[in-house]
Amino acid sequence: MSIPFKAIEWRNNQVVLLDQTLIPVTEEYVAFDSVGPLIIAIQRLVVRGAPALGVTGAFGVVIAMDEATRNNWSSGQLEKAIDDLRDARPTAVNLAWAVEKIRTLVPLGRDAVLAAAEDLARDDQQSSTEMGKIGADWLINSLGSRQVTLLTHCNTGSLATTGTGTALGVIRELHKRGLVKEVYADETRPLLQGSRLTAWELMKSDIPYRIEPDGAAAMAIMSGRVDAALIGADRIAKNGDSANKIGSLGVALACHAAGIPFLVVAPESTVDRSIESGGEIHLEIRGDEELTHFKGQQVAPIGAKTFNPAFDVTPAKYISAVITELKAYEIAKGESL
Amino acid sequence: MSIPFKAIEWRNNQVVLLDQTLIPVTEEYVAFDSVGPLIIAIQRLVVRGAPALGVTGAFGVVIAMDEATRNNWSSGQLEKAIDDLRDARPTAVNLAWAVEKIRTLVPLGRDAVLAAAEDLARDDQQSSTEMGKIGADWLINSLGSRQVTLLTHCNTGSLATTGTGTALGVIRELHKRGLVKEVYADETRPLLQGSRLTAWELMKSDIPYRIEPDGAAAMAIMSGRVDAALIGADRIAKNGDSANKIGSLGVALACHAAGIPFLVVAPESTVDRSIESGGEIHLEIRGDEELTHFKGQQVAPIGAKTFNPAFDVTPAKYISAVITELKAYEIAKGESL
Repeated sequence: MSIPFKAIEWRNNQVVLLDQTLIPVTEEYVAFDSVGPLIIAIQRLVVRGAPALGVTGAFGVVIAMDEATRNNWSSGQLEKAIDDLRDARPTAVNLAWAVEKIRTLVPLGRDAVLAAAEDLARDDQQSSTEMGKIGADWLINSLGSRQVTLLTHCNTGSLATTGTGTALGVIRELHKRGLVKEVYADETRPLLQGSRLTAWELMKSDIPYRIEPDGAAAMAIMSGRVDAALIGADRIAKNGDSANKIGSLGVALACHAAGIPFLVVAPESTVDRSIESGGEIHLEIRGDEELTHFKGQQVAPIGAKTFNPAFDVTPAKYISAVITELKAYEIAKGESL
Repeated sequence: MSIPFKAIEWRNNQVVLLDQTLIPVTEEYVAFDSVGPLIIAIQRLVVRGAPALGVTGAFGVVIAMDEATRNNWSSGQLEKAIDDLRDARPTAVNLAWAVEKIRTLVPLGRDAVLAAAEDLARDDQQSSTEMGKIGADWLINSLGSRQVTLLTHCNTGSLATTGTGTALGVIRELHKRGLVKEVYADETRPLLQGSRLTAWELMKSDIPYRIEPDGAAAMAIMSGRVDAALIGADRIAKNGDSANKIGSLGVALACHAAGIPFLVVAPESTVDRSIESGGEIHLEIRGDEELTHFKGQQVAPIGAKTFNPAFDVTPAKYISAVITELKAYEIAKGESL
């Protein structure tokens, strides 16, 4: 299925990024041929989503090498630039993972590095496709081959990966099979990745959708409007406990109470088999400003304290299955990863 | 306990309202001596909250009588003005209830009507105080006499009533007894009554608080940060099912999963014994604009559809108790109303 935009593209020896901070108002692409501006773009969330950050980092190493050649950098200068790229967002595991993986090839020369970055992008794209098929099959097996209404949280689509997406990839695959009636997209406070990004992707692909406040998800689910919910993940423990964007846990609790499937969809690289359970996952707490202000406008008392975690952990007992590019792990049936 | 502001006051033959649309940025009072502007103010949400609307409507009848005298209205003109006032917000039951109750006294003259409106305000204030005591006693009985962290949703305080509030009245009473460690206030999308209004009230009363996105409530509760949650209600069925601001249901589900108390606090006038269960409660669905735009700025694709219910219904099985000014109804123990 064709996606009518590219979040990341390697073109004319540049990384071209779709500026996600401007969506849904403007669709604007920015090209980078030096590392400094690319790092700033990553930090400004021009590109976001764990798999997308990995691919960006991989191409970023090529750019660093080209810049080194242009400007006669010492090898120390090149290493420093790659370190800075790796550390641009410390919590995005995939970014550091991809940069470290690709940099080992630097001694083999620019062609080898570019080929590896292109492989990594292709693998990421292929993962989306596999997850989409496995997840769609799982849902059809569970719900029957009929038109269904699905609920999702945050953005897990072609803006977060180089392919069709994780949870949204499953939705896209089901849509391709003619089985999506409608998608409920949680707006996903505080940064509105749902109403800004997921809604935009669904609109671009002509998939029927509606936006809802995160607080309406429980009602949508408990009132029988929704057949299943799907989310992505930032880290999955061996027992299936899954960290994902704040608000995911509430969706899972409602699905559990309503007795409908709740799926976590993420590539194998998101599974962290070094940790037994979600209690070991460090959860980033973000600053007050995202809640006390909206685009510079004050919406809370001056000096208000906040509780603004970026992620929550959904215990395995509320998860029906974890879908990766390899298989569906049947968490509800006691399977671990 | 003294509240450092008055949402509604009768002064110099005028209704003086604290303009809630400007909070938390500005604390501004507006005085009304004619019905037309008062109706517009009600529709603009200068004043909101079911009990507060009732009191405003009651004083509004006095204003209508004064205006009739000033302008030599016919009795038909006066009746029409009172009808318009009653219908200013069709979903706010208390407004219509209070206006109809007070208008029966119009034939007895202005003094009788004003006295009745003042009685109604006093009763409302007294209700808050009683609910506060009953709720605080209930929580101490359940949690022990210790400092606790409480979670609340929307605004149920001195901006929504003429007293200390419903759920927030209980929190104020517990604070008076030195037992509140901190309050988690859900921001309450889409209109942010939590971060705008509840946070402001708590700040004014020096009650420690923090704002959280609605999606973080489940994590706050399931991670053990919160000892109990309290909400208000817009309508309560005989079996205890309670309609309240969208997002309340998710809070209830998380409390149920965590095994902590979930209280609904509302005056007896909110209990509708004519309906057996929540399935009979009509739930208002609001427009798209509240989700697709924020203060005029586009945050979703043009033409995005939404699911924007103003209320959800929490089934009685997730409610520990309903607190009114008369008693604590032990819903979890099978008591009905």
